[in-house]
Amino acid sequence: MTELTEPGGKVRLFVTAGLAADARVTPDEGQAHYLLHVMRAKAGDRVSLFNGRDGEWLARIAEVSKRSCVLQCEKQTRAQQDTPDIWLCFAPIKKTPADYVVQKATELGVRALQPVFTRRTIVTRVNAERMAANAIEAAEQSDRLTVPDIREAVTLDKLLKTWPAGRRILFCDEGGDAKPIADAARSIKESVFAILTGPEGGFDPAERETIRGHAFVTPVTLGPRILRADTAALASLAVLQAVKGDW
Amino acid sequence: MTELTEPGGKVRLFVTAGLAADARVTPDEGQAHYLLHVMRAKAGDRVSLFNGRDGEWLARIAEVSKRSCVLQCEKQTRAQQDTPDIWLCFAPIKKTPADYVVQKATELGVRALQPVFTRRTIVTRVNAERMAANAIEAAEQSDRLTVPDIREAVTLDKLLKTWPAGRRILFCDEGGDAKPIADAARSIKESVFAILTGPEGGFDPAERETIRGHAFVTPVTLGPRILRADTAALASLAVLQAVKGDW
Repeated sequence: MTELTEPGGKVRLFVTAGLAADARVTPDEGQAHYLLHVMRAKAGDRVSLFNGRDGEWLARIAEVSKRSCVLQCEKQTRAQQDTPDIWLCFAPIKKTPADYVVQKATELGVRALQPVFTRRTIVTRVNAERMAANAIEAAEQSDRLTVPDIREAVTLDKLLKTWPAGRRILFCDEGGDAKPIADAARSIKESVFAILTGPEGGFDPAERETIRGHAFVTPVTLGPRILRADTAALASLAVLQAVKGDW
Repeated sequence: MTELTEPGGKVRLFVTAGLAADARVTPDEGQAHYLLHVMRAKAGDRVSLFNGRDGEWLARIAEVSKRSCVLQCEKQTRAQQDTPDIWLCFAPIKKTPADYVVQKATELGVRALQPVFTRRTIVTRVNAERMAANAIEAAEQSDRLTVPDIREAVTLDKLLKTWPAGRRILFCDEGGDAKPIADAARSIKESVFAILTGPEGGFDPAERETIRGHAFVTPVTLGPRILRADTAALASLAVLQAVKGDW
């Protein structure tokens, strides 16, 4: 038996089907192509599967046809576990940085990605399918057992009006008088939180006032330099994971 | 008078000439093209200049010819200051992530970038000119008053053998028994430090033993997920800035 590996490590596939002893799973078309034609997998080879619910399973390629195959679960190799409950609420930015934010935030262990439209957001629509594909790929490669939840884009106004009780927002504020992020993170009493970052050019002054007016918001600073929108999102997520997450 | 701005903020140029009251500075060809043909600047317009030594100066475009111009310093707008003394020692990675690492590390306030060749490093040469150009652009846009020092690439062996006394290395170790990075950063006694991150695929086990064998090395972990080389470099830099730097 061979456990398939690629340069980054073992081959892991995210599937939607239930995983249990002897469960048979049909990978989707792209996954089948990857296994059979890119990896040149053969019947009997093993891959790892996860679905966000049933932990990680070692599965054997049980049947192979020209364009498809069937994977049969053999044994559970890891019990299900989730990442810390941190959301990233971010103003969508142009394509390459957005792809990058989704991939990196997934590696960094974000629970949910929430695109937010603000006044200065230039991007007018979000490609949720592309975001989901990036998140799945990053989850497979980073050894996660879950894929972050990709939320439907909302306006800042709606985000704040429908904000769930008990979840604190760390608001990456360029205003100057905010708390350093590590101090702010250490003093959070809530066990669930979110980061809110703006578009290139930042939040509009009125938006900034509105955000800061909410009791569930803590403004934080990421130091004296000007960070790009994508850098701010990832840096704040890294600090929050290191101080309050699972690092 | 107009102070030139671009979407990210005011126009700032890094120059090598000395800056002082009434000093006249000739921008390089690329900068002159940018000012005259991209920004359509005219005589009398203002831009900000910095050189890594003399603070930030507001300068007036004093003379304009077809392909060049002269900038005359008017007043110092910020005194010189440096970023925290943190180096990033990283195994060079393929082009796009390497550009990204240089840009982001510059925004995050790194003092020096040191490419390191390891056994599993696939890249065999480093484009120092490209790295410098990326660092200058990011310094201009992030409001830095310095450009990080781009060091000549060295082997891991040489790096460790010539390591300066009194500087601690936080070694991003995938080995499992390392300290969480935030705890390790808080307990550093040295005031100057460096981060050491590996190539895709990580350090070779023998290299890892060698690195860990040095008294100036503290192995640290970035949590239970597998991070790409570039993610690990930037996440560790963000945490170090937040905990021990100037955030």
